[in-house]
Amino acid sequence: MNYKMMGRFIGRILLVEAVFMIPALLISLFKQEDRARVGFLASLGITILLSVLLLVLCRGSKRSFKAREGLVCVSGSWIVMSLLGALPFYISREIPSFLDALFETVSGFTTTGASILPEVEVLSMSILYWRSFTHWLGGMGVLVFVLAVGMLGESSKGFTMHLLRAESPGPQVGKLVPKMKKTAEILYLIYILLTVLNIVFLLFGGMPLFDAVCTAFGTAGTGGFGIKNDSIAGYSPYIQNVCTVFMLLFGVNFSCYYMLLLRQFYSVFKDEELRLYLGVILGSIVLITLNLKGFYDTFEETLRHVAFQVASIVTTTGFATTDFDLWPTFSKAIILGLMVIGASAGSTGGGFKCARVLIVVKGLRRNLRRAISPQKVQVVRINDHMVDEKVLENTNAYLSAYVIILFISFLLVSIDRFSITTNLTAVLSCFNNIGPGLEAVGPTCNFGDFSGLSKIVLTVDMLAGRLEIFPILILFSRSTWGRLKG
Amino acid sequence: MNYKMMGRFIGRILLVEAVFMIPALLISLFKQEDRARVGFLASLGITILLSVLLLVLCRGSKRSFKAREGLVCVSGSWIVMSLLGALPFYISREIPSFLDALFETVSGFTTTGASILPEVEVLSMSILYWRSFTHWLGGMGVLVFVLAVGMLGESSKGFTMHLLRAESPGPQVGKLVPKMKKTAEILYLIYILLTVLNIVFLLFGGMPLFDAVCTAFGTAGTGGFGIKNDSIAGYSPYIQNVCTVFMLLFGVNFSCYYMLLLRQFYSVFKDEELRLYLGVILGSIVLITLNLKGFYDTFEETLRHVAFQVASIVTTTGFATTDFDLWPTFSKAIILGLMVIGASAGSTGGGFKCARVLIVVKGLRRNLRRAISPQKVQVVRINDHMVDEKVLENTNAYLSAYVIILFISFLLVSIDRFSITTNLTAVLSCFNNIGPGLEAVGPTCNFGDFSGLSKIVLTVDMLAGRLEIFPILILFSRSTWGRLKG
Repeated sequence: MNYKMMGRFIGRILLVEAVFMIPALLISLFKQEDRARVGFLASLGITILLSVLLLVLCRGSKRSFKAREGLVCVSGSWIVMSLLGALPFYISREIPSFLDALFETVSGFTTTGASILPEVEVLSMSILYWRSFTHWLGGMGVLVFVLAVGMLGESSKGFTMHLLRAESPGPQVGKLVPKMKKTAEILYLIYILLTVLNIVFLLFGGMPLFDAVCTAFGTAGTGGFGIKNDSIAGYSPYIQNVCTVFMLLFGVNFSCYYMLLLRQFYSVFKDEELRLYLGVILGSIVLITLNLKGFYDTFEETLRHVAFQVASIVTTTGFATTDFDLWPTFSKAIILGLMVIGASAGSTGGGFKCARVLIVVKGLRRNLRRAISPQKVQVVRINDHMVDEKVLENTNAYLSAYVIILFISFLLVSIDRFSITTNLTAVLSCFNNIGPGLEAVGPTCNFGDFSGLSKIVLTVDMLAGRLEIFPILILFSRSTWGRLKG
Repeated sequence: MNYKMMGRFIGRILLVEAVFMIPALLISLFKQEDRARVGFLASLGITILLSVLLLVLCRGSKRSFKAREGLVCVSGSWIVMSLLGALPFYISREIPSFLDALFETVSGFTTTGASILPEVEVLSMSILYWRSFTHWLGGMGVLVFVLAVGMLGESSKGFTMHLLRAESPGPQVGKLVPKMKKTAEILYLIYILLTVLNIVFLLFGGMPLFDAVCTAFGTAGTGGFGIKNDSIAGYSPYIQNVCTVFMLLFGVNFSCYYMLLLRQFYSVFKDEELRLYLGVILGSIVLITLNLKGFYDTFEETLRHVAFQVASIVTTTGFATTDFDLWPTFSKAIILGLMVIGASAGSTGGGFKCARVLIVVKGLRRNLRRAISPQKVQVVRINDHMVDEKVLENTNAYLSAYVIILFISFLLVSIDRFSITTNLTAVLSCFNNIGPGLEAVGPTCNFGDFSGLSKIVLTVDMLAGRLEIFPILILFSRSTWGRLKG
């Protein structure tokens, strides 16, 4: 294991994190929030100190970098980043327990949006800002950012490839252009542009600037931390609809936007993942709206709430305008399904991902065709391209890892004696980076009552979900640390 | 599609079914159960008539038989067999709705044991006998029986292979000896021997002969239909323990018994599936016993109930001695896990099967090792044999089909407005051929209150679970009936 290079790498990530703490610090100074100011100053100091230490101590490592080291780097840096990102909450005493602060921070960076806080309006503005900002940074990925701004200049090509593969969601790495750095730049440019657009549209609806920025952070990263106790329910229907549209936009594969910029409209129109994504959304809205007949006063209200909740869950954002835990079982069953399916690959959303659903279903159909006519050669095609057998195999392995982690987490969380539905949806919600679940973790509730063990399990689930399982599994795998010495 | 050969094949199956109706008819005559006698006489007549019609009309078909035809034959014959097997219940008016009678019969043949009846003690003895006997016939499989008694003499080797592959549970076909007919004979001999042993042990405990035979049928097929309203709860601890032991015995891969007969003790001792099966059982018993501290009066009682329920669920039998729906959530979570894992391949039990769990977990570990060191060749081994890549691929396809069917069924059953836990466990229970679930389908409840749609969905799930999905999927697949003409 090339520890020196890993150390330098994590040092750089921490430097970026420290820089991003500055706006929050400025807010705390400007708003004269004393405890938060102390929190941010101390956290900034510690983060910079650690970063410099790592950069100095780990000088002069050799260049060679293996696949497993890339994966360990990714999960390692996410963990260190979360530990230090939790400091402002903890040092300011706004979240007095460090475990809770860590849960909240991991929930932020992984864009889950599950909270241990019963009320968020008691938090100071700078802390609220930092909390929402973690979503924005985690959404597109801090490693992708580091890559985009050229802070990995001297690294080898293979290494950046490993990084992007590990941090970018989806079964296949979406290289938009041959150069990885350029790809990362384009992704961040689209991301920033859409975020700004989102803020502008929210401001048009009369939302205060601070609210608009924080809400846009939560939407862009498909995170879901709100700055109001009732999430988005208290805002105007216009603002709710703006959120619905932008949540859906951030759940689209960003390569579609790039193709739009290149005027490849036909490719976007024919994109099978996009079609599945939109089909699932439309179908869910229709079915739930029919199922909710008479639940709300008007059809407009029904449609608005249904579209918002469907968008929020399928993109794994987790904002809410109504308590869907009160909906009839059929609607809740659809919500459960959306939780698992999730957004598109290459978006900021989580979940199993539409692209993987496509691959799994088409792979299954291939196997059926094989059983029917064993002599024929059968291939799987998506968007008229043949899907590589390795991708099929990895997607199947992903499914099995997904099911196994889901079950083990469910079992461990069940020690807490909440109901089966609570435990199952808590795990589904954290693992798919959504936020709310059902019953005791429904949209009006929070994760504060879980035991320490459950919080740790759910924290690991959030990380595993965001990094798409393998980097986390590899971090805990014996073969990574044993035998093979770097 | 070779319809003539299929017709002849189904005709033979029906003949076997008719013969097996005779003991029930005799009981109804002996016990002077008028309505049941009419039911069995009429059913026997209809079944024989249909059988003869099929055998006569479908004479002279050509010999060639394709893979898909084998699979269609299997699912087709199971459906026809269930339709006719439901007639005694329906004609005798002991189950007045035909859909309910069909649900009960499919539940019997698939060895599920889920019932729509609130009380079973009101049924006549002959009907109770037939109900329990469906478990015994479905457990080892009627096609395997037909094969064993030589009624497929003239069929090609490839065809019998397809049949056995489709009806025998597990990822790999367990050919004990090179000849398929001989394999089927050995399987049935072991099956009959164990069933007789089971009856003898039950009689030793003072159980009446009729009860002992029916209970042994339910145990041997890992079915779970009881002849008492409280299942096995009213019998003595000795009888309960006998049931525990025999349920576990019938959940073992029958090839282990064959190896024991051949004195290959070491192979049995080293069998990885057997070890996983026993490990899961032992682990679950220990964890639930610890979790239930203070729930029952004595340690003996706790251990007896826990061992019984664990054996009943993991082997997918579904008998009960206590209401595990009242257990704490952690214990129920373990029960849920056992529902999915299920018994061993090549046993009469259902579920995902221990062998598949092994393959999925080892396949996943292989993929992790590959990510860590991409240059090394990695193979998956079970019992020191390399697992073929095709088997790995099929097992992964099985997992995806399993998850997809589970979800779609859950969604459809949710239209009924029962709770999420009820719907989820109802589907899990039927799909894995268990019987009871939790909440409204808990051990003290039944499936009678579900709507017609839900009953149809659950009936299809039971068949799909018993035939291991693919034959049922292929029956509904367009490619089976389109393009390719037989």
